[in-house]
Amino acid sequence: MRIEICDVGPRDGLQNDPKILEPEVRAELVNRLAGAGLPRIEAVSFVNPARVPQMAGAEQVVAAIDRTPAVLYAGLVLNEKGYDRLARTSLDDVHFAFAATETFNMRNSNATVEESMQTAGRIVTRAHEDGIRATVTIGASFGCPFEGKVDPGRILDLAARLVETGPDEIVFADTIGVAVPKQVKHLVAEGVKLGRPVAVHAHNTRNTGFANAYAAIEAGASVLDASVGGVGGCPFAPRASGNIATEDLVYMLHGEGIETGVDLDELISVAGWLEDVLERQLEGQVYRAGTFAPVAG
Amino acid sequence: MRIEICDVGPRDGLQNDPKILEPEVRAELVNRLAGAGLPRIEAVSFVNPARVPQMAGAEQVVAAIDRTPAVLYAGLVLNEKGYDRLARTSLDDVHFAFAATETFNMRNSNATVEESMQTAGRIVTRAHEDGIRATVTIGASFGCPFEGKVDPGRILDLAARLVETGPDEIVFADTIGVAVPKQVKHLVAEGVKLGRPVAVHAHNTRNTGFANAYAAIEAGASVLDASVGGVGGCPFAPRASGNIATEDLVYMLHGEGIETGVDLDELISVAGWLEDVLERQLEGQVYRAGTFAPVAG
Repeated sequence: MRIEICDVGPRDGLQNDPKILEPEVRAELVNRLAGAGLPRIEAVSFVNPARVPQMAGAEQVVAAIDRTPAVLYAGLVLNEKGYDRLARTSLDDVHFAFAATETFNMRNSNATVEESMQTAGRIVTRAHEDGIRATVTIGASFGCPFEGKVDPGRILDLAARLVETGPDEIVFADTIGVAVPKQVKHLVAEGVKLGRPVAVHAHNTRNTGFANAYAAIEAGASVLDASVGGVGGCPFAPRASGNIATEDLVYMLHGEGIETGVDLDELISVAGWLEDVLERQLEGQVYRAGTFAPVAG
Repeated sequence: MRIEICDVGPRDGLQNDPKILEPEVRAELVNRLAGAGLPRIEAVSFVNPARVPQMAGAEQVVAAIDRTPAVLYAGLVLNEKGYDRLARTSLDDVHFAFAATETFNMRNSNATVEESMQTAGRIVTRAHEDGIRATVTIGASFGCPFEGKVDPGRILDLAARLVETGPDEIVFADTIGVAVPKQVKHLVAEGVKLGRPVAVHAHNTRNTGFANAYAAIEAGASVLDASVGGVGGCPFAPRASGNIATEDLVYMLHGEGIETGVDLDELISVAGWLEDVLERQLEGQVYRAGTFAPVAG
């Protein structure tokens, strides 16, 4: 069995970090992740640099990537303007994301959910015409910081409509890290019935992220998002941690006998490098505790 | 469905902390945990204070506990000398622990595994004669810091022999936090066939602890150890984190629809109190991120 991991550290991880990294450094992170065998990397987002200065210079980041043929290089967009920028780069994959609740989506994308649904369809169509892969992420699939609980039936309705537009993947995102395994299992099990690969984007904000990833796999997810070192905070909870750490996920998956294509030792050294770059201890644990190597007796 | 949680923070948590707390403060922690509805608390260990100064004065801790009738108050012992001390207190429950591997057990208990197996039998018998509950923990059930991988067949053989001595529970402990869900599922599923309640003691050293707890429940475990705030490091990995955090476990279990009897908000306030006492940010995440309460839109 194999699970595809998409490292979203260069995007979701760094976009919330207090330290702003230059495009060259962000490209180096992407290159190091590719060197560790990550099959997919969300390298940049095409958003307004005035709103998210951490993500400024997406085009420079892409230009500085040393392409590894086996890797899918992706960029996040929230609207067609973002897609216009992405389409002019050499990226392979567009990740369009929106939030399932009106308040969150209006704040994040200045659009109604219905407007974002229409945009999703247009971007998927345009991307495929342009020879670019396209996935759609339903943010706040398990809970919204403004509206609270989210009805899974509503998420599945959105997913069903999105599938009709032909995306390469549907991603259920626990944007604020509130999900528990039961919820993940339900959405994924129902989601895969729609006939498209299902991915889960888990945050470890409340320490449920790895159990959620495990439940996602049990229910049939084929792709998991994670970020090296577990970087990526949450603007709504200043002391909260970020995405599930890629190296910790790989430790668990390899232990389960699931292939990822990732070289865990290499990935741990990327986390160590990123710790130096960000000048703080990261949330990931395996890079600190080490893999399981008995000490000298 | 209900899962019994045993909070081992006052013992496993504090025994590795750089800050040594006075018996009165440790008793206050026990009392606060009881106030939050924890049904079981491992309050002390009866070990040599010269070796583990954090655990000195176990008798004073027990004497300072305000007994809540519904709570099982437990103490850890590694040998009969420890049991002699415990039997003179008002504790309800003895937790005898040993490591499944020779090197680890010799270092930790100065005994061979076979010697500890004999001690386990004697302590269970003596405890039951004394009207005290008795559980046996098999440490390093999933991996040993000195000997590496541990054969699950060997653990199950030890468990089968221990069950013959009549303990109230068998605990599989991932003492160094290396286990993955697959291993936990296997040991628990086989363990419950022996006819005694099975508990799992998980550490979150490599971020697999909560997925392991989830897998333990799926496989039929009825008791889980955890420590408030996730306190409890590992002497073999200085930057590693400790036990799974009780409040994070409760967040997950309640989300799953599993009862624990714990008041999560109360428990979160205990973690906040402990942060102040230990003067450092704790490993638990829910007490920092908060439970899932939407912010004002």
